[in-house]
Amino acid sequence: MERNARGHRLIESHANPVVKRARSLRDKKHRRAEGLFLAEGLRILTEAREAGVLPEQIFYAADRPVHPLAEMLFEAMEASGREIIATSADILSRLSGKDNAQTLVGLYRDRIVPLSTIDRSAAPIWLVVQAMRDPGNLGTVLRTGDAVGAGGVILIDECVDPFSVEAVRASMGALFTQVIAAAPWDAFIGWLREGPGCLVATSLAPGAVDYRSPDYPAPTFILTGNESRGLPPDYEAACDLRVKMPMLGKADSLNAAVATAVMAYRVLDRQGGA
Amino acid sequence: MERNARGHRLIESHANPVVKRARSLRDKKHRRAEGLFLAEGLRILTEAREAGVLPEQIFYAADRPVHPLAEMLFEAMEASGREIIATSADILSRLSGKDNAQTLVGLYRDRIVPLSTIDRSAAPIWLVVQAMRDPGNLGTVLRTGDAVGAGGVILIDECVDPFSVEAVRASMGALFTQVIAAAPWDAFIGWLREGPGCLVATSLAPGAVDYRSPDYPAPTFILTGNESRGLPPDYEAACDLRVKMPMLGKADSLNAAVATAVMAYRVLDRQGGA
Repeated sequence: MERNARGHRLIESHANPVVKRARSLRDKKHRRAEGLFLAEGLRILTEAREAGVLPEQIFYAADRPVHPLAEMLFEAMEASGREIIATSADILSRLSGKDNAQTLVGLYRDRIVPLSTIDRSAAPIWLVVQAMRDPGNLGTVLRTGDAVGAGGVILIDECVDPFSVEAVRASMGALFTQVIAAAPWDAFIGWLREGPGCLVATSLAPGAVDYRSPDYPAPTFILTGNESRGLPPDYEAACDLRVKMPMLGKADSLNAAVATAVMAYRVLDRQGGA
Repeated sequence: MERNARGHRLIESHANPVVKRARSLRDKKHRRAEGLFLAEGLRILTEAREAGVLPEQIFYAADRPVHPLAEMLFEAMEASGREIIATSADILSRLSGKDNAQTLVGLYRDRIVPLSTIDRSAAPIWLVVQAMRDPGNLGTVLRTGDAVGAGGVILIDECVDPFSVEAVRASMGALFTQVIAAAPWDAFIGWLREGPGCLVATSLAPGAVDYRSPDYPAPTFILTGNESRGLPPDYEAACDLRVKMPMLGKADSLNAAVATAVMAYRVLDRQGGA
């Protein structure tokens, strides 16, 4: 095995099985099979480290100066016996799928937890997305969750993979600070009703109240539906609160991640949380 | 020239110059040269029609049933002598860049107006983005502008093209209801100071006030900086108000389109606008 001057394993061939395996994690099928995903860039990997999460394996650009924050990451990884791989910019581009690649790519264990392990009283706000399809939206919801101090994001029904490269990128590291759970609707609603929890959705129904009025008792679960179809009517009907936001334009909708964020900031405000 | 049973020009060859020209509008260079851009899908094209904007030319799937809303579009186009082209699903996919293409693609005149033509008193809120790079974010900002009843979106410095396929898609048609202007910073601030206008930006600076406090006199201009770098310090200093939003997480930032929307809804609320 070839090593560089720092003693790190050096890989410069695209055909190397370690590279091919990392590259395969760009596909959901392989992520599921391995229970691993890719995250890239010093900022996101540092957020992860600060949240106590280290990559199983890391690739870095051998011919570029190493940032002090990357050195901190390497030290933490060495202390727990994880593999650091020096490689080329070309291979990093191949892993990240971008021409102008980040200088760090890490392989992380995926982090979906069962609903039953969630402590709902740990946070006053939880975000719940149903059949969300766009990875950028899901990553943005995770990032918003971090900003409002949410406990985590619960994925209902068939959602886009939160561990896709695009979702990880859009989350800006919030993927590592937010608890992520996934469940079909029936399991979610069953779990929710076992304890305290106010389930709220934005709605165009006539009985919906102004989103600025409720007190949103903690824990409040903010439910957002699919980007095109919104929520199924029976899901909306099962909510404790249906609220409406002003829609002054031609369209009667917002981007799903935007609607989630406007609601989340309003709930935070009404709860007196910040 | 071949015509179908409805009398529409029929084009089924990828090599046809009309197809090649439409396809070329996926590139910014060609959009600029022609002053045209592509929008796709019944929903967006109908929003445009309802806002009084018709495509110069339209392509539709000849072998699929035509929706009544598409018929309304065809009638309006025929009344003003515009060309309707029947084509294949394959060519529509090529124009839209998606495997599962929409059944309608329109070519529209681009719509950037000079700042000097803007009537700032026409709306209580205007959105201003500086060096925004992500087309999905810009489209989402346009969509939010429509929802909060903003007058339009002003693009400062070098922004992503609002007429890129991705931005048009993310705008969900708001591109046609919002005024869009573009200007360098100096020209913008010169124009702004010629009349009433409260320029506000979110800020991490120590003097920033809680975003829930100000009254945000109309017209308020909400300024959002670049996704990675935020606003240049001198732009922030030139604002009438610097406000802070709660950031309870590890990161001290939100997605740029999300931050714009949370601000816009708060301004709308404080103005008593809805």
